[in-house]
Amino acid sequence: MRRGAAFAARPTPWPARYWNARSTSAPRSHRFNCAVPACCSQASGRLRREAPMHDGLLRIGSAAVPYRYGADCTDGLAEGIEALGLGSAIVVIDEAVQSHAEPLLSRLGQRMQVRPIVIAGAEQHKRLSLVEEVLDRAVAEGADRTSAILAMGGGLVGNVAGLAASLLFRGVRLVHLPTTPVAAFDAVLSLKQGVNLRSGKNLCGAYTAPAMIGCDLTWLTTIPRRGLLTGIAEMAKNVLAVVPGRERDFEEALANLPDRPVAAFTTLFELGFDSKAPMLRTDPNEKKAALVFEYGHTVGHALESVAAGAMSHGEAVAWGMLTAAEASAQLGHLGDADLKRHYRLLSHLELPAPRIALERFDLESLATRLRSDNKRGHIPCPPESAPMVLLRRLGEPVADGDGMPLIPVSIGTALDAFEKVTATEEL
Amino acid sequence: MRRGAAFAARPTPWPARYWNARSTSAPRSHRFNCAVPACCSQASGRLRREAPMHDGLLRIGSAAVPYRYGADCTDGLAEGIEALGLGSAIVVIDEAVQSHAEPLLSRLGQRMQVRPIVIAGAEQHKRLSLVEEVLDRAVAEGADRTSAILAMGGGLVGNVAGLAASLLFRGVRLVHLPTTPVAAFDAVLSLKQGVNLRSGKNLCGAYTAPAMIGCDLTWLTTIPRRGLLTGIAEMAKNVLAVVPGRERDFEEALANLPDRPVAAFTTLFELGFDSKAPMLRTDPNEKKAALVFEYGHTVGHALESVAAGAMSHGEAVAWGMLTAAEASAQLGHLGDADLKRHYRLLSHLELPAPRIALERFDLESLATRLRSDNKRGHIPCPPESAPMVLLRRLGEPVADGDGMPLIPVSIGTALDAFEKVTATEEL
Repeated sequence: MRRGAAFAARPTPWPARYWNARSTSAPRSHRFNCAVPACCSQASGRLRREAPMHDGLLRIGSAAVPYRYGADCTDGLAEGIEALGLGSAIVVIDEAVQSHAEPLLSRLGQRMQVRPIVIAGAEQHKRLSLVEEVLDRAVAEGADRTSAILAMGGGLVGNVAGLAASLLFRGVRLVHLPTTPVAAFDAVLSLKQGVNLRSGKNLCGAYTAPAMIGCDLTWLTTIPRRGLLTGIAEMAKNVLAVVPGRERDFEEALANLPDRPVAAFTTLFELGFDSKAPMLRTDPNEKKAALVFEYGHTVGHALESVAAGAMSHGEAVAWGMLTAAEASAQLGHLGDADLKRHYRLLSHLELPAPRIALERFDLESLATRLRSDNKRGHIPCPPESAPMVLLRRLGEPVADGDGMPLIPVSIGTALDAFEKVTATEEL
Repeated sequence: MRRGAAFAARPTPWPARYWNARSTSAPRSHRFNCAVPACCSQASGRLRREAPMHDGLLRIGSAAVPYRYGADCTDGLAEGIEALGLGSAIVVIDEAVQSHAEPLLSRLGQRMQVRPIVIAGAEQHKRLSLVEEVLDRAVAEGADRTSAILAMGGGLVGNVAGLAASLLFRGVRLVHLPTTPVAAFDAVLSLKQGVNLRSGKNLCGAYTAPAMIGCDLTWLTTIPRRGLLTGIAEMAKNVLAVVPGRERDFEEALANLPDRPVAAFTTLFELGFDSKAPMLRTDPNEKKAALVFEYGHTVGHALESVAAGAMSHGEAVAWGMLTAAEASAQLGHLGDADLKRHYRLLSHLELPAPRIALERFDLESLATRLRSDNKRGHIPCPPESAPMVLLRRLGEPVADGDGMPLIPVSIGTALDAFEKVTATEEL
């Protein structure tokens, strides 16, 4: 049963009285009880020095979204949320990050009604049926038009809760509290909310500006290294397609990851923010210049779809970027030095050997996926081709006459480029 | 199975070749084959004289929505839709109005790809699951970002297809083709799209401006008289709460309905348009002054919910308006003459005798529904009260300091007023 699968059956691990400021038994103060060992005890002073609070306004079109990123910053996040003047907070939490939620939510619970909804964050649950369950639970928990939905988890929770906030009473406020690198540095810096249809990924959604984005970077330190790949791949994409001058920052962050993770995450956040913010200001719905962030995502989505769960988004996008670079070179846009820099930069991702990872893919299955790529409607695209972001130089996409960074590439060219990546000795 | 219940199983009754301009067998011309006997043969000249095409732009906030209302106006509607430059038209059609669709869709099919999706329009299907089915069918029929969803049917089809258009690829264009009076004169003149949750009516939705609204008023002439009640009740609401000077137009339209239905519908359309347009311009999301259109809908929704399908929306709203008028009088806002005018105007609706219709309602069940009325979040509202639109005069709601036309009314007062309506001898 979907409901059973998507909703964590286990009871909330915190005393219920923590969640409700209106309950007479709610404590006026609480013992800080952070689940991240490196965070609030011996290391907190060091982390604070490493990563001062980044806060400000992210402008996405006409929306100004307050953001707060820091380490050991429960109070700062809570104050930001309290300043929204919410009637109540419905908190959609990935079951994997419940321990991170406790300090923040018990702090919030002193001032407002806080209601957690714990969900399991698997891609196959990212459907309208899960959104509907969240909506029904929110109403049952007393949500009204003055409530906000807080999304605490990775990209999936952000998307599901984001769409739920867009739809509940035709829109209540949304607060993103990302707990994975890809969510924190990439996915939440966007108006795009969405879920999958049976017929394809992210085909159903809405554009909604969050009322706030907040992240305690110590939440990210508990992600296993393999789980970091997607966030790192998206930041590599930003370096290659948008801000090549930040290559050293990127490499420095990767080097810092094992021993100084908060410093590394701070650098990666700055990289993500600085790449996306200027584009989002003028292209809030990411339908024109900001389509450059789709670099690597045409072949990437096709690989992910054919692999049906056996390849992470980050790995698929990495192969997709190499394929796009090979296609750019093959079509005479990209020089050999910039192509080689792709391989060098992406070697940091510790991808599996290309032959082992890619030879198993049936080219006809990939071609089928490429023919129905969901970026087709953005530009006129002949049937035997797929819309791809190509580069003429690092940081400089090939644009059509209207400045659209999407080019129809014949399926044959795309598959030739993919075979070059499969056969490469560069990684 | 929901899918079986909501989707009409019967095959589309028109030759498939009519639907696809790209098919080589698509005819370049077609014989006009209107299903409304009074429309295109002997009477069409008269109808055309009775009802010249109304077209223009409806301004809803910053959106300018082209509308076209006329009789026997297939060509005019088709030209309006063609001018949108659609990649394809996905037409969501209520199975009850398929015969009305044929002339328009076969005309459109000469110029663009037209794909019908026939659904059954029952209230219990108005859920996200039906929206998801429409979305999956649309993608399977080749919809892309250049497509539009056309909604042809009553309020339910408009709502389901409207929300589907809001969500597909995060928003494709929406064309409303209303075929019932309440849809044509009321529901489609709005940005509000929405479906029901298990926990309540219309709790899940979006604000989306249609790309066009088009209506051939002859479509409305096939609705049985009882089916007209909801549209007429909403127009009576407009007279009572917004434009009392139009009372004679309203009564004249009702008198014309049996013999000159198109003339009657034209008057009712003008009444609906003139009531809503000025409010929508300044309050596009209907969260402030336009909440006056909720007149009668607090007790109305409670009755409808308790009756669970046994009372039409129009009848429920009529009783709701009488209750709101009695409460307004009881609280010293509304004078006796204006209260009496409510009974006089609503007597035209041929409602059943109040005792027979209303005595069967359990007051405690009504109270429960009133306590969770979905307008609560618009204003602060104490627990034992419900937000209602009250009148101080016809056309003049009682407003709070911020100009909000909603007042918290104690459940006791609301139920007292309801009992007065139940016991009335005025109808």
